[in-house]
Amino acid sequence: MLKPDFAKLNGLLTTVVVDANTKAVLMVAWMNAESYRRTIESGETWFWSRSRNELWHKGATSGNTQRVIEMTLDCDCDTLLVSVIPNGQACHTGSYSCFFNLVNSK
Amino acid sequence: MLKPDFAKLNGLLTTVVVDANTKAVLMVAWMNAESYRRTIESGETWFWSRSRNELWHKGATSGNTQRVIEMTLDCDCDTLLVSVIPNGQACHTGSYSCFFNLVNSK
Repeated sequence: MLKPDFAKLNGLLTTVVVDANTKAVLMVAWMNAESYRRTIESGETWFWSRSRNELWHKGATSGNTQRVIEMTLDCDCDTLLVSVIPNGQACHTGSYSCFFNLVNSK
Repeated sequence: MLKPDFAKLNGLLTTVVVDANTKAVLMVAWMNAESYRRTIESGETWFWSRSRNELWHKGATSGNTQRVIEMTLDCDCDTLLVSVIPNGQACHTGSYSCFFNLVNSK
């Protein structure tokens, strides 16, 4: 089984969450080894909250859980792509995706 | 204009690159303020290489540049989503996308 490389980012794996149906990028978050293990075990996304310094079961309080369909590590195994069926919006602002701030080019 | 928050990750912005046509996630890389500026200026992706500690114009040596179609910052402006038209594969392994290591669930 593939081993994620937690060393490059101080024990954290950069994680991109996409909607399995629409393919939209919903959010980027971080997993430590324990949240990675719990995600695989539970079939729902678990992250490490860098601001609160704690394990974070996505949707535990909001109900907006994410059911994992597929997980893929990148070429050097330090970044994870998680394809999910979201149960509600991904963003704490109430938005479907965290990515809604369009950058104007010059 | 929106200001990216470079402070949270030691001057770097986590950047997710997706194919504007297929919506596939191609790679995750990091931008510092200078590569962000050059990306907007040039319309092609520039990153900060953490391993080589230098600015990195994607495709400068391989020819596999990425033309920027749209850029979106996330809710707290510390992560960037870049939608591109790739001129060739994204991955240094020769793969279309860096994400090809399927994680087996339990």
